[in-house]
Amino acid sequence: MSFKLKLLEAAEKNRSWLCVGLDPDISKLPRKLGSNPKAVLKFNRAVIEATSDLVCAYKPNAAFYECLGAAGWEVLEKTIKSIPGHIPVIVDAKRGDIGNTAAMYARSIFEHLGADAVTVNPYLGKDSIKPFLEYMDKGVIILCLTSNDSASDLQKQLMILENPPEAGLMTPQAKARTFAEFFASSTRKVFEHVARLATEWNEKGNVGIVVGATAPGELAEIREIIGEDMPILIPGVGAQGGDLERSIEHGSNSSGQMAIINIARGVIYAWSDESDFRSEIRRAAQSYREQIAEAMEKKALFSRR
Amino acid sequence: MSFKLKLLEAAEKNRSWLCVGLDPDISKLPRKLGSNPKAVLKFNRAVIEATSDLVCAYKPNAAFYECLGAAGWEVLEKTIKSIPGHIPVIVDAKRGDIGNTAAMYARSIFEHLGADAVTVNPYLGKDSIKPFLEYMDKGVIILCLTSNDSASDLQKQLMILENPPEAGLMTPQAKARTFAEFFASSTRKVFEHVARLATEWNEKGNVGIVVGATAPGELAEIREIIGEDMPILIPGVGAQGGDLERSIEHGSNSSGQMAIINIARGVIYAWSDESDFRSEIRRAAQSYREQIAEAMEKKALFSRR
Repeated sequence: MSFKLKLLEAAEKNRSWLCVGLDPDISKLPRKLGSNPKAVLKFNRAVIEATSDLVCAYKPNAAFYECLGAAGWEVLEKTIKSIPGHIPVIVDAKRGDIGNTAAMYARSIFEHLGADAVTVNPYLGKDSIKPFLEYMDKGVIILCLTSNDSASDLQKQLMILENPPEAGLMTPQAKARTFAEFFASSTRKVFEHVARLATEWNEKGNVGIVVGATAPGELAEIREIIGEDMPILIPGVGAQGGDLERSIEHGSNSSGQMAIINIARGVIYAWSDESDFRSEIRRAAQSYREQIAEAMEKKALFSRR
Repeated sequence: MSFKLKLLEAAEKNRSWLCVGLDPDISKLPRKLGSNPKAVLKFNRAVIEATSDLVCAYKPNAAFYECLGAAGWEVLEKTIKSIPGHIPVIVDAKRGDIGNTAAMYARSIFEHLGADAVTVNPYLGKDSIKPFLEYMDKGVIILCLTSNDSASDLQKQLMILENPPEAGLMTPQAKARTFAEFFASSTRKVFEHVARLATEWNEKGNVGIVVGATAPGELAEIREIIGEDMPILIPGVGAQGGDLERSIEHGSNSSGQMAIINIARGVIYAWSDESDFRSEIRRAAQSYREQIAEAMEKKALFSRR
């Protein structure tokens, strides 16, 4: 079954577009679990058990496992195996390398780890994404506009798509007119360019993109570019200050679907009482699921008016 | 000792700017070594033993280890430990993630693996690079212009740095003049922008950049932007068709230094006779070291004229 279908089925079954980010920092776990890599696995299994009927996907971020070395990699493998088979797993790895190396990363994530989807970085262009795209049943989720402040360094810069017309060949009037016209028709932001590339690369229907919840205005623009069917993975709600309601409003398609709201810290650290961390994590996930459902309901009401 | 100093010392001691890429594909090893992850470690150790007096650095690419799972990660750890302490190790990981996650990757690569330098992706901007930069003695090598064809998808696109002047406020003549002037002064390619950002982010002197050997013309432009002291890691000679001589000519600084020529497949698979693979690998490394030395010599002769 394709990633997209699996995602839609899980979202329908659990009535949820909440994705829980499995980003466990070994120094922040309930003390009774211990403080070695095995504690991370125990913690993840507790999170999965407490939430697997409330989510549309899980998203472990590779960095939180790699920093524990080979033992951490083993925890990642076992964590993925602990996730019920009908819930899709997105490995957040943000990989990007030239073709033959990208093929190794794709093999690692899709075959060795058995993930359903992966996040990738667009900086190297299509041939760095292609080895992932060739796995037709897997999801390839391309970074577009991220939730951090420095997204402005590159992603929000303005691009020109064509060379300016030859000034020497025009009358001054034509030149003056052309100046404004040229800018109106021939510029776009880098993230907009990446959204268009993602659409172009989506020949097999297995592409998704990442847009931070911190950019609800841009979310609407991007949904417009990519159309109805492409999932948007939306991190940044909660710890990073993104707006959940506006993310659903602008990021979902016209049926209110395909906006995957990822919450990591807001769920997995939502406990104050160690002895009861499982129930508190469950309550946090329930609360986010409800907030998402309410936002979807509001959007539906609004669009029916 | 800082990465840059360690690099300079190794380059001087071995009279070499050759970096050997440790990218072992488990299906391409000499059969007598076996075909499990341990064979990869044996192979790497043989490569290191055969070449450690001929290189300025080693560059293992993380993908080739990750695809073997936890066992592969262990091979990477042990490979790095097998490299003589005076030769710097660049982990080619091309990581890029938001701040708290980037800190985990930095810890993984610099502390857990003990590497001297890492490659990172600039798409997320400064705050994704900062956690790496804070390790003052480690090298942070930022992707700028890569050696693959699809570098044109994003890296070679043209950016505008400022909004166009308000057309309404100018005479037609001023508008026409401004059009050409505006483009001349306010545009740059994305890779050029990244080279400038890298220079800006180099407050602690520990930044380097990656520019493919497939772009010798752009190498000169980029060296001009970053100045004399920043190392450029240059992959793409050999299997990818990049030009070694022109890479040294345009990529090195005025003393012919700081252009790290990375060769992976051209060295580690440079054997036809399995029983003699160590000597053939050594001969290939020697030959590349010589070609680099000749190119440096030519450049010196030319600049003395």
